[in-house]
Amino acid sequence: ILNQLLLPEQLRYERVDGAERAWKAINSMEVRGAPAIALVACLSLALELAAGADGADGDGGDGVAALEAIVDQRLRFLLTARPTAVNLHREAERLRELLRGWSRSPGITAKELRERIIEHIEGLLAKDREDNESIGAHGARDILRRVPAGATVTILTHCNTGSLATAGYGTALGIVRALHGQGRLRRVLCTETRPYNQGSRLTAFELLHDNIPVTLIADSAAAAAMRECGVDAVVVGADCVAANGDTANKIGTFQLAVAARHHRVPFYVAAPSSSCDPALPSGAHIPIEERPGQELTHLQGLCLAPPGIDVWNPAFDVTPHDLITGGVVTEWGVLPPGDLGLVL
Amino acid sequence: ILNQLLLPEQLRYERVDGAERAWKAINSMEVRGAPAIALVACLSLALELAAGADGADGDGGDGVAALEAIVDQRLRFLLTARPTAVNLHREAERLRELLRGWSRSPGITAKELRERIIEHIEGLLAKDREDNESIGAHGARDILRRVPAGATVTILTHCNTGSLATAGYGTALGIVRALHGQGRLRRVLCTETRPYNQGSRLTAFELLHDNIPVTLIADSAAAAAMRECGVDAVVVGADCVAANGDTANKIGTFQLAVAARHHRVPFYVAAPSSSCDPALPSGAHIPIEERPGQELTHLQGLCLAPPGIDVWNPAFDVTPHDLITGGVVTEWGVLPPGDLGLVL
Repeated sequence: ILNQLLLPEQLRYERVDGAERAWKAINSMEVRGAPAIALVACLSLALELAAGADGADGDGGDGVAALEAIVDQRLRFLLTARPTAVNLHREAERLRELLRGWSRSPGITAKELRERIIEHIEGLLAKDREDNESIGAHGARDILRRVPAGATVTILTHCNTGSLATAGYGTALGIVRALHGQGRLRRVLCTETRPYNQGSRLTAFELLHDNIPVTLIADSAAAAAMRECGVDAVVVGADCVAANGDTANKIGTFQLAVAARHHRVPFYVAAPSSSCDPALPSGAHIPIEERPGQELTHLQGLCLAPPGIDVWNPAFDVTPHDLITGGVVTEWGVLPPGDLGLVL
Repeated sequence: ILNQLLLPEQLRYERVDGAERAWKAINSMEVRGAPAIALVACLSLALELAAGADGADGDGGDGVAALEAIVDQRLRFLLTARPTAVNLHREAERLRELLRGWSRSPGITAKELRERIIEHIEGLLAKDREDNESIGAHGARDILRRVPAGATVTILTHCNTGSLATAGYGTALGIVRALHGQGRLRRVLCTETRPYNQGSRLTAFELLHDNIPVTLIADSAAAAAMRECGVDAVVVGADCVAANGDTANKIGTFQLAVAARHHRVPFYVAAPSSSCDPALPSGAHIPIEERPGQELTHLQGLCLAPPGIDVWNPAFDVTPHDLITGGVVTEWGVLPPGDLGLVL
């Protein structure tokens, strides 16, 4: 994985050789973004299995049970690294289900089962990329139908939802890429995204790298930008979408949605269906991770606040579905948030 | 002056010996806050006069004209350090007017004139502190009349408007101090205030120092805080209030006002009448200073964004008067923003 804590100053890839290292990478935010977290976690499990951590090479009935047990234990452990991101929860759930089905196949060996798991996990990478391209196409089409034919658009985005947060292409940034590919993107305004600066460190880096016109703004400047800079749409990602469309995403998303409504700027959430959890009836049921205050008070050894200061540092906030005025952009299309429950 | 660029890591006082050094201190933000900027600038002029920069010791009619010329030239120069802060503009205007009147007094000497100027400028210090105490009392009374008798309140504030931004006590923080003094303050939530971190570096420092309960939040967390933490009022300062009540203040103020309206939380601007400019009919006439992008991309040598990134970094935004739902708190009382034009 590309160590995102060191960007943009340093491009360093880290070797992730198993679940322990993946947990650390996810918890310390060397890798972040709900889809990327799920992929790194699952791939780390596949790696361990491929390396024989399951003892499946011994074969036999006991081998199948042992394999199921180790997969279950590893998934449980990986889920504790970041509690809010739903994709990993859903992928873990799906994998367990598949595993239950497969292990009932008459005569299946632990080795065969292991191969199926690894194949399934490898398939997630390709699917994530394809889903993002679909999200990009659907989102771009919906935004462009709101503006005159041939007009270019300015998009405001928050946090990082690009290649660095996914298997590639991106969710909200996938929409940006699709617009750019069609020659219809005027500019992206990207927020700094305190306290972890995913906007200035990652989004700005990624878009500049891909020659997509981007302007960095302070999180505080978003409402002023909507008033002064002609923003056509706000597009963000999601860490978790509940069945009623309420969306947990990076802290500040709710505030952007309020500002967008004030300015009648359509507000879109771009999220693969794997980020949507039909088991959660509303945002009130989404657990919100609180992170250490040090993320606000310190920056790479620099002290930005007086020692001993009390800090409230929720990593996410919930945007109620009625503020998602553009819709939720999934790989299936753009859905009014209220319709999500019907299709999930 | 206390060098605010070094807080909270270092408490260093800088010697300001005249207008040149004051200009640098204001432009580089060693000192900031509209009232403090006006005071430092005027006091630097008084210092130069006291040191004989005006050549007034020569006396005579020519001395008076020379004194007027040098005061005018110095004020013009000082005004270029930060264009948005109105207090210095107004103090400069007032000083020029007084000077015109005094210099017409029959037989006045340059020396006498100089003494009057210095005395007037010294008086500004005491007046600023008194005005802040009045602002504090008026604001606290107005906020408390909205809550049940004896209830304590949580206040959300932005940037720094305390002792460090004024001659002492503070404007928005003056209201906080008054509430605290009456035992009616539960907690202050202070925003980090990117890109210069006046909230985390200065407000958090100042309140913690004075044992006032304070919690630091990211700028992005303000709307979530209004929803989750029971904020009773948002109170901010002002760099410039137009005749119709539109208010220029630190970037992010407008976004807070939008969020406050969404949550029906009263929004107050605390500003001495010297921050109000009746000559500006509305916020559209307030010049908004844009600052270097480096404030967002760099932090004391650390690089937070990719080199070459485009940045939009307005230092202030304008909050339209209809979002100032609590009122404008001046030393005369709390005014509905629409009534400001009548009293100025």
